[in-house]
Amino acid sequence: MAKTNPGRFFEDYTVGETIHHAVPRTVSGGERALYHALYPARHALYSSDEFARGCGLPGSPLDDIAAFHVVFGKTVPDISLNALANLGYAEGRWLKPVYAGDTIRSTSEVIGVKQNSNGKSGVVWVRTRGFNQRDEVVIEYCRWAMVRKRDPETPAPEAVIPDLAKVVGPAELVIPEGLDFSNYDFTLAGEPHRCGDYEIGETIDHVDGVTVEEAEHMMATRLWQNTAKVHFDTGSRPDGQRLIYGGHVISMARTLSFNGLANAQIVAGLNGGTHANPYYAGDTIKAWSEVLDKAETPAPGVGAIRLRLVATKGGAPFELKGEDGKYLPHVMLDLDYWALMPV
Amino acid sequence: MAKTNPGRFFEDYTVGETIHHAVPRTVSGGERALYHALYPARHALYSSDEFARGCGLPGSPLDDIAAFHVVFGKTVPDISLNALANLGYAEGRWLKPVYAGDTIRSTSEVIGVKQNSNGKSGVVWVRTRGFNQRDEVVIEYCRWAMVRKRDPETPAPEAVIPDLAKVVGPAELVIPEGLDFSNYDFTLAGEPHRCGDYEIGETIDHVDGVTVEEAEHMMATRLWQNTAKVHFDTGSRPDGQRLIYGGHVISMARTLSFNGLANAQIVAGLNGGTHANPYYAGDTIKAWSEVLDKAETPAPGVGAIRLRLVATKGGAPFELKGEDGKYLPHVMLDLDYWALMPV
Amino acid sequence: MAKTNPGRFFEDYTVGETIHHAVPRTVSGGERALYHALYPARHALYSSDEFARGCGLPGSPLDDIAAFHVVFGKTVPDISLNALANLGYAEGRWLKPVYAGDTIRSTSEVIGVKQNSNGKSGVVWVRTRGFNQRDEVVIEYCRWAMVRKRDPETPAPEAVIPDLAKVVGPAELVIPEGLDFSNYDFTLAGEPHRCGDYEIGETIDHVDGVTVEEAEHMMATRLWQNTAKVHFDTGSRPDGQRLIYGGHVISMARTLSFNGLANAQIVAGLNGGTHANPYYAGDTIKAWSEVLDKAETPAPGVGAIRLRLVATKGGAPFELKGEDGKYLPHVMLDLDYWALMPV
Repeated sequence: MAKTNPGRFFEDYTVGETIHHAVPRTVSGGERALYHALYPARHALYSSDEFARGCGLPGSPLDDIAAFHVVFGKTVPDISLNALANLGYAEGRWLKPVYAGDTIRSTSEVIGVKQNSNGKSGVVWVRTRGFNQRDEVVIEYCRWAMVRKRDPETPAPEAVIPDLAKVVGPAELVIPEGLDFSNYDFTLAGEPHRCGDYEIGETIDHVDGVTVEEAEHMMATRLWQNTAKVHFDTGSRPDGQRLIYGGHVISMARTLSFNGLANAQIVAGLNGGTHANPYYAGDTIKAWSEVLDKAETPAPGVGAIRLRLVATKGGAPFELKGEDGKYLPHVMLDLDYWALMPV
Repeated sequence: MAKTNPGRFFEDYTVGETIHHAVPRTVSGGERALYHALYPARHALYSSDEFARGCGLPGSPLDDIAAFHVVFGKTVPDISLNALANLGYAEGRWLKPVYAGDTIRSTSEVIGVKQNSNGKSGVVWVRTRGFNQRDEVVIEYCRWAMVRKRDPETPAPEAVIPDLAKVVGPAELVIPEGLDFSNYDFTLAGEPHRCGDYEIGETIDHVDGVTVEEAEHMMATRLWQNTAKVHFDTGSRPDGQRLIYGGHVISMARTLSFNGLANAQIVAGLNGGTHANPYYAGDTIKAWSEVLDKAETPAPGVGAIRLRLVATKGGAPFELKGEDGKYLPHVMLDLDYWALMPV
Repeated sequence: MAKTNPGRFFEDYTVGETIHHAVPRTVSGGERALYHALYPARHALYSSDEFARGCGLPGSPLDDIAAFHVVFGKTVPDISLNALANLGYAEGRWLKPVYAGDTIRSTSEVIGVKQNSNGKSGVVWVRTRGFNQRDEVVIEYCRWAMVRKRDPETPAPEAVIPDLAKVVGPAELVIPEGLDFSNYDFTLAGEPHRCGDYEIGETIDHVDGVTVEEAEHMMATRLWQNTAKVHFDTGSRPDGQRLIYGGHVISMARTLSFNGLANAQIVAGLNGGTHANPYYAGDTIKAWSEVLDKAETPAPGVGAIRLRLVATKGGAPFELKGEDGKYLPHVMLDLDYWALMPV
C-alpha cells in the first residue's frame, strides 16, 4: 500500500460528503508576530490587546485573514493538491474571533460537482468550516476549484451546481460578541475616517508597494501548513518558477489597504474573490480599493463597509478589466469583502 | 478628502506640539523568537528567563534594541515618511524593561525646527517617548531628521535648536528595578570579562560577519511596523535598490558585539548615533567597538560601560573617518551607548 | 587580553572534562510558529495542544528536532567553531519533552580524543546533554567532529576511542510520561498507517520537494543560536558560498517525511547520522525513508519504528551509495532514528 497522499481527484468527491481535514493547529503570539513580520500589518485591533479591549473584546485576536489561512491551509491536501485552478469564493463569514491558545481544525462539505466537457477535469464546490477547540465554527466559506480526473474514462457524475449568494447580506454578518466602537480611538488607530466618510463608488489608491521575495512567501505559506508543491519546489512547474500562494496576495493587499482604510478593522464577510493572474517573487504588489456598499449593524458604533480590494503588479490604479471583459494582466486579485468600521 | 497618509512636511511641525503616534503593539514570545531568528542575538539576559531571574528581574525582557524599534517604528508615518535623512540621536534612556504581554505606544514632542538655507527642507528635532499599558515611559530619546517642505514658498519658522546633551551622564541612567549582578553566572553568559577587565580606549573587533538578504531586513522592518517605502518597494528609488532600515544595522551590530562584549547585557543609554552610509542586501556587516568610558551604578554588582559601536561593510576594523573628517565609505553606523555590565 | 572567543582547538579537549555551554534559552510559542514557517512541519502532536492532550501529554511540546537544535546550537562555540567536519552521532535519546516556558542549557562531556596521522587535526567525541530549568536531562547524544589543532607541534594526547552503541536498544527509549496512543485520531493526524502497516525493509519516497533560500537557512540557524561563520558570511569560505547548517537538512527531511510517515509522531532515539555532502541555497531538497526495525514499548498503544531518513538534492529516491561504498554526490543526509507511532 502506498503510504504517501496522492491527493483526491475529481471522481473522489461525492455531493453531501464531509471531509475532515488533518493537522489541527494551536495558535499563539508567535503566529501574530510572524504575521506582522511577513506583511505590513497595522490594523490596531490585531496589534494591541489594549486597543482590542477598548473595543469590547477580551484581547487582540489573530488577524481575520490569518485565521482564514489556518482554516484554508488544512484543506489543501484534500481539495487542491490536484487542482488546476482555484476558481472562486462565496458566502464567507467570520463567526468567532480566534485567540492565542485556540486550536483550529477544518472540515469541508462537498456541495457541488460538475464535470468539464473535455472529460479530463471538473469543478468541485465545497463549504469549508473552521472549528475551535470548543467545536464552535470560527469561519465558514464556499470555494470552488477545477480538479483533474484520475481517469478520463470514468463516467461523469450528475452535475450539482450550488446556488450561492452573490453577496453576504449585511444582516447575516456576525459581529464579535461585545464589539463596541462607541469609544473608538481614531488617533491610535491611525486615521480619522469613519464609515460615514466613505461614499459608495469611492476608490482609494493605497499607494505603498512591496517587492516580494521567495523566502517570504514560502514562510507564509508553510506557516498555514499549505503544502502544494508549486509554491516550494522549482522542479514542480515547467518554467522553474515557484507560484505564490493566492492567500499571500490577499494578506499583502489587505495589509497594504491600511493606508486609507485603517479603520476597516475586522473582516466579517467574504462575498467573492478571483485570483486573476499568477504572482512570482520579484513582483511588486500594490493595492487599491473601491467602496461597494455600506450598512448598519446592531452593535454600538459599528458599521459595515463592503469593499472591492484589488492587488496589482504594475499598471495604473483603478484599472481592472480590458475591453474583452477579462482581467488585465497586471491584476492579481479581485476580492469582495465586508469589514466592520466605526460608524 | 484623500484617505491615505501623505506624511508630514517640514511646515507641519510646531515646536511644543506633541504627536500621538498610531498603532499600539502588544509584544509576546513571538517577537523574541523572531529577534533571535533575524539577528545573532545571544545576550543571556534576553534569551533565558532563568538567567534574568538570577539577575533580579521577574523574567527575560524583550531585547532593549527590539523595544527601541517598536517605539521608533510607530514614529515613522508621522516623522520620517518625507525625511531626506535621519541625522542623529541624543539623550536616549531605557527607563523600564518591556515584557511579553506589554502594550507599547509612542508620542513625539517637537523640540526644534530649523529651515535649511535652500528653502526646500528643514531639520526637525523630536523627543520620542514609548509608553507601556500602565502609561509608564519605557524609552525616551531625541532624534532629528531632515524633512522636505511641501511648498518652498512657505516662510521659514523661527529657528529653535534644542540644547541636547553630548552624553547621558551615568547618574541619569535608570537601572531596571531589582537588577543585581552579585551572583552573575559568567559561564552561562558566555564570557569571563567584567567591566573592570575593559580599559577606556580599548578596541574590540567582533570578528563575525553576516551577509544580509532582502527577505530578512524587510521582515525585521515590518515587525516594527516601520512603513517607509524605500525599504520595501524596488520602484521607490531611482536605482531600484531597497535601502535597509538603519535600525537593522543597529541590531545586527549590537548582536554581533556579543563576541567580545557578551556581558554588556543591558542597553541603558543612547548618547548619539550616525547612520554614516547606506546599506543594501548582499552587503556583509561586521562590527567593532571602542570603550569610551566606565562608571559605577548604585545597583549591586552593576557597572556601566560607554561604548562606541561601529558597523562596517568591508575595510579594516577600527577605521572610522578619512583625513577629510568624513566617515569612510564602508562605515555604516557609529553608535555611542551605555550598557550595564557586571563590575 | 583578547576578548573574543577563538573557539577551542584539538589540544584544548581533555577526556573526562565537562564543558558548560553558554546562553541558556527559554522557548515559547514563537519558536513553534517559526518552526512551522521555516519547515513544512505538520506532525499533529507538535501542531495542536488538543491533539497532544488526546495522546496523554499536558500540551503540545516543542518539536523534538527543534529541541535538539536548541541543545546543539549552544555547543557550537565550544565544540565546532574550529571543526573541519561533523563526523557522526550516536546514542541519542529524547528524555523529556520541552514545553513553552522551559529554559534549556547544555553541557558536553569529552569522552574521546584521537589525533589524526597528519598531526594537524584530531577527532573529538563528546556526550552532550540538554537540561531544563529543573535540571532534568531533556536530550542526550554523542557526537564526534574533526577539529583543527592550534599548533601541529603539540604532542598527540593518548587516544581514547569511546565504545558507542551502533543502535539505541528499543528498551532504552524513554517514552514521555503519560503518552497513550489508545485513542489516537488517525483522521486528524493525516494518515491511516499504524506501525503494523510498515514492513521492515519498506521504503517510502516522500515525494515533496523544497528549494531553499539563504534567508531561510540563516534564520533557522540563528534561531538555534548556532554561530558558525560559514553559515552567514559569504567571505568565510573561498567559494563565497554560505554552507547550510546540517541541522537545517535534518529538519527539512524529517518534516517532508510527514507525507508517508505522518504517524511517526515523536522522535525518541538517534542511532546515527552522516552529513554526506554539503548543501547550498538554491538546492531542492527531497527525502526518502527506509524502515529498519520495529519494536514494542510499554506505553499503551505506542510502538517504536526505526527509520533511515535520507535527504537528497537530485537523483532518484532510494539510491544511497556508489559502487565505491561512498555516498552518492546528491545524498546530503543519512539519518538513523527511532520514532514513536501508534501500534
